[in-house]
Amino acid sequence: MGQSEIDAVRALLGSKPRPVGWVERRRRIDEVGSLWPVANDIKLEQVERGGVSAEWSIAPGSDASRVLLFFHGGGYCSGSILSHRRLVTEAGRAAGVRTLAVAYRLAPENPFPAALEDAMLAWRFLLEQGLAAKNIAVGGDSAGGGLTVALINALRDAQATLPACGWLVSPWTDLTLSGTTLATKDTIDPLIHKDYLRELANAYLSSGINRADPRVSPLYADLRGLPPLLIQVGSDEALLADATRFAAAAGEADVAVTLEIWPHMIHAWPMWNAHLEPGRQALAGAGAFMRRHL
Amino acid sequence: MGQSEIDAVRALLGSKPRPVGWVERRRRIDEVGSLWPVANDIKLEQVERGGVSAEWSIAPGSDASRVLLFFHGGGYCSGSILSHRRLVTEAGRAAGVRTLAVAYRLAPENPFPAALEDAMLAWRFLLEQGLAAKNIAVGGDSAGGGLTVALINALRDAQATLPACGWLVSPWTDLTLSGTTLATKDTIDPLIHKDYLRELANAYLSSGINRADPRVSPLYADLRGLPPLLIQVGSDEALLADATRFAAAAGEADVAVTLEIWPHMIHAWPMWNAHLEPGRQALAGAGAFMRRHL
Repeated sequence: MGQSEIDAVRALLGSKPRPVGWVERRRRIDEVGSLWPVANDIKLEQVERGGVSAEWSIAPGSDASRVLLFFHGGGYCSGSILSHRRLVTEAGRAAGVRTLAVAYRLAPENPFPAALEDAMLAWRFLLEQGLAAKNIAVGGDSAGGGLTVALINALRDAQATLPACGWLVSPWTDLTLSGTTLATKDTIDPLIHKDYLRELANAYLSSGINRADPRVSPLYADLRGLPPLLIQVGSDEALLADATRFAAAAGEADVAVTLEIWPHMIHAWPMWNAHLEPGRQALAGAGAFMRRHL
Repeated sequence: MGQSEIDAVRALLGSKPRPVGWVERRRRIDEVGSLWPVANDIKLEQVERGGVSAEWSIAPGSDASRVLLFFHGGGYCSGSILSHRRLVTEAGRAAGVRTLAVAYRLAPENPFPAALEDAMLAWRFLLEQGLAAKNIAVGGDSAGGGLTVALINALRDAQATLPACGWLVSPWTDLTLSGTTLATKDTIDPLIHKDYLRELANAYLSSGINRADPRVSPLYADLRGLPPLLIQVGSDEALLADATRFAAAAGEADVAVTLEIWPHMIHAWPMWNAHLEPGRQALAGAGAFMRRHL
């Protein structure tokens, strides 16, 4: 069933020509991401702080004093609260916590460090709300996974209290694009290709920062002291090696790491959880992980 | 607490000079492995088949129709039912299944393929007992982890029905000794060093087989079609990269992989579960994994 379901997602993603240009890409990810709307029982609330929009969500019975702070994917250039609403809200339900999804500024209009500044602003906003760091999990998919690690690293460097755990779905950890699966999984991956990643990296780094800078490529960061990490990735992903190499690097730095590789799943597959059993299973596992640590 | 406990295990392992020669090594691993005896409520039963000794174990309330087939570590040259009895029996309890621990023939007296032949004999023995492949998990630590994958690969190549899942603790997957952590973790690892591994590999491969042969170095095997794998490894292990690279290779071959990296744990730390909380936690996780798949 998982196989025919993922085939249906592949068909959906391939049903229109690949969008060209930032405007079209943003429109398209919002369109496919919101095809399956948020569940009826989820309560949403918009907030704004320092020019950054964000959205609270909570499912019935969840604990409002514990929060998943979430950063959406989209290569630092697209993606939104809307595109990832189904993913974030169901992750919150699985974890039994509130979520805060952040509309951080996007490149190319706002290159690095805009996204990281906004991620830090969102973190501080949670603390100002009275939340304890130990009651916050931070997570993200794709570029949002990289941003998650960049935020935790920045907090660690500032000797601030760290979140309880990190959750990375299909994280983009290496903007130098050196992963071997960029080539070996190129034909099987319906979404991510090296040329596209190069364009995204150029847009995010147009401020002149090096691609191997640990603040944009956490694969090259000092990872000591990070909280427990759950990393989930599909086997049909060009970014598979971004996840496996990052897991190895974090483990070598004495971080508690759980890496899950999901056969035949594609980039950020838990986005399609409404009609994809392995998407729901991955969220259930992520929820159990966050419950253990929050 | 985990930290002081692992320090106590390190002190124990370092309390006597490192043994030299096969006889001393075998005596020593039996000695330290049986320091904490099997729990009182475990029922043991010796069996013998085709010259290979094995031992059943079952904890109260476990399901005798489901089995963990286990291959101990010791570099293909040492280790025994005795040395690993506490590990195997508690893994069986955690999984709620019977276990069969196999005293496969050891090198240098019996180089490759003796161990693999005996592993296959044990597998056939289970089927002859009326057990279904889908009710069998196969697992092992260190060299036993490599042997586990070699057995499953051999079954896959023979188009036989495969076990439900595999469980690998600190697996030795690369007898070419090319893992980078052999150097980076050398000083922190109290047990495994490159010279020692070279000696073990030479003994196991004295029959003239290539070190990169997939039957002895599963890192280089075709891993397609393998059942779900749980791989557990410590961050203080010279063999860390044997686990992380194998996880990546299996995942790239569309195997469902869960890799856990445990901070500050040493080679095959669940052996010391009697006095090591992370050892018990790792076994609890492995037990849950086997329950899900059996």
